[in-house]
Amino acid sequence: MDYGARIEAALEAALARTMAENGPPLLSAAMRHAIFPGGARVRPRLVLAVAEACGGDDPELADAAACAIEMLHCASLVHDDMPCFDNAQTRRGRLSVHAAFGAPLALLAGDALIVKAFDCVVRGAAVSPHRLAPVLSTITRGVGAPFGIVAGQAWESEPNPPPEQYRCAKTGALFTAATMAGALASGGDPIPWRSLGHRLGEAYQVADDLLDAVSKPEECDKPVGQDAALGRPNTVTELGVAGAVARLEALVGEAMASIPPCPGENELRELVRMQALRLAPKRLVRSAA
Amino acid sequence: MDYGARIEAALEAALARTMAENGPPLLSAAMRHAIFPGGARVRPRLVLAVAEACGGDDPELADAAACAIEMLHCASLVHDDMPCFDNAQTRRGRLSVHAAFGAPLALLAGDALIVKAFDCVVRGAAVSPHRLAPVLSTITRGVGAPFGIVAGQAWESEPNPPPEQYRCAKTGALFTAATMAGALASGGDPIPWRSLGHRLGEAYQVADDLLDAVSKPEECDKPVGQDAALGRPNTVTELGVAGAVARLEALVGEAMASIPPCPGENELRELVRMQALRLAPKRLVRSAA
Repeated sequence: MDYGARIEAALEAALARTMAENGPPLLSAAMRHAIFPGGARVRPRLVLAVAEACGGDDPELADAAACAIEMLHCASLVHDDMPCFDNAQTRRGRLSVHAAFGAPLALLAGDALIVKAFDCVVRGAAVSPHRLAPVLSTITRGVGAPFGIVAGQAWESEPNPPPEQYRCAKTGALFTAATMAGALASGGDPIPWRSLGHRLGEAYQVADDLLDAVSKPEECDKPVGQDAALGRPNTVTELGVAGAVARLEALVGEAMASIPPCPGENELRELVRMQALRLAPKRLVRSAA
Repeated sequence: MDYGARIEAALEAALARTMAENGPPLLSAAMRHAIFPGGARVRPRLVLAVAEACGGDDPELADAAACAIEMLHCASLVHDDMPCFDNAQTRRGRLSVHAAFGAPLALLAGDALIVKAFDCVVRGAAVSPHRLAPVLSTITRGVGAPFGIVAGQAWESEPNPPPEQYRCAKTGALFTAATMAGALASGGDPIPWRSLGHRLGEAYQVADDLLDAVSKPEECDKPVGQDAALGRPNTVTELGVAGAVARLEALVGEAMASIPPCPGENELRELVRMQALRLAPKRLVRSAA
């Protein structure tokens, strides 16, 4: 089974537990809406690819870590779209969760997905219980305060967020958690995989900044021009369009170069390149051609 | 050290990690505001009391479980107070988190506390790593969908919530998680402790319903009359004031009777009685005198 199919199957199975057990149906529907249909599933693909590169001896735990990372990502999108943040009515080309279900259920669906993410990992660690603590620690660090994506979002409420810390927390932290958790799920050393996650996370943030700054509304499945409108830091403001594109290409190169010798090394490099560049506006990035 | 002091020390230590590591300062402050000064800390007291009753051989894990349960409770209060739910400006006699810090930081502080709760348990399981999975599973069940407090809140968005399921999820689930996690933290069997948590949770919900229905604003540190105003289920509507008081007293009696033979059994009964009745309006409940 390819990574994409594994990820969808694992997410379906995790969500099905919520639906089957007579929970509140609108909450279940809002959680589903947040997860399906997905985007590129870049972070869980990274978890699985690194888990394979480290031997892949416990696919159940790798799947669980991949699901958890994707659920946490989707939860953050649900909360970021809410009226008190971006007030985005659309996401991935259809209604955002709060637009479809109202703010109360969006808030709760995000909360429930955060809890379910951790529950997934606990259930997935049956074969390798000794790996549970390191996988969970790595994931909580990528999500919570002071270094994770929640902290990254919170930097936007500060008068002068330190640019490097803000960028690392906002996007990099969950990518780093993805590569490191993938290694740990297979009993591997996570340290050689930190740099790949870190660089990719930075590349994604730059790609996202470019999308926000230079896309036309019809090219993009979410509102554009939000950073300028809301006075948020954006790489294009700092470096200009050409500078941001050069930075993106350099980061993708560094990410690929950081991959340590491992089984399937070449395929992994190619996966990284494809995934990293697919978000950037096509007409700007040469190597995406 | 008594339970109260242990709980405050453990919460302080967990929050200090967020402050010390250069996270976004307003997020840290909002998280502190959500946790300190606390209410009665009933749920974490229950965790510690049951952990002691089961032998208390790993106080570090018991403290961690107690902290986690309290953080999850506080996170739910922060989110429940937000404008899209109760829009409560005050909590425990001072500003609610969103009133003090704004809705964005309140939303993020709740999210960060959920993540930190799980991180706490992972860190606290160093001595007994084999107890990590059962403690975490018990806690996630009490919090998430379909049975936990998030689901309980979500039932309020349904047209006809099933009263028993709604009540169990809304309050009972986290009390049940508290007693069962306390047992598991000491390597004990959680099943004999389920009923204590369940009954106490129901008792708390009835006490809360009474407070909401019959308190005068000056007797209560949060807005009153919310259930009637928002058309939410309330035991007083179903049973009348006298019926609700009788139900509360019966539930507390059942909770005390459910305590299995254990070390410190009498003290535990007294703790349960005191904690269960302290929330109810004093002038209504005879046995609180």
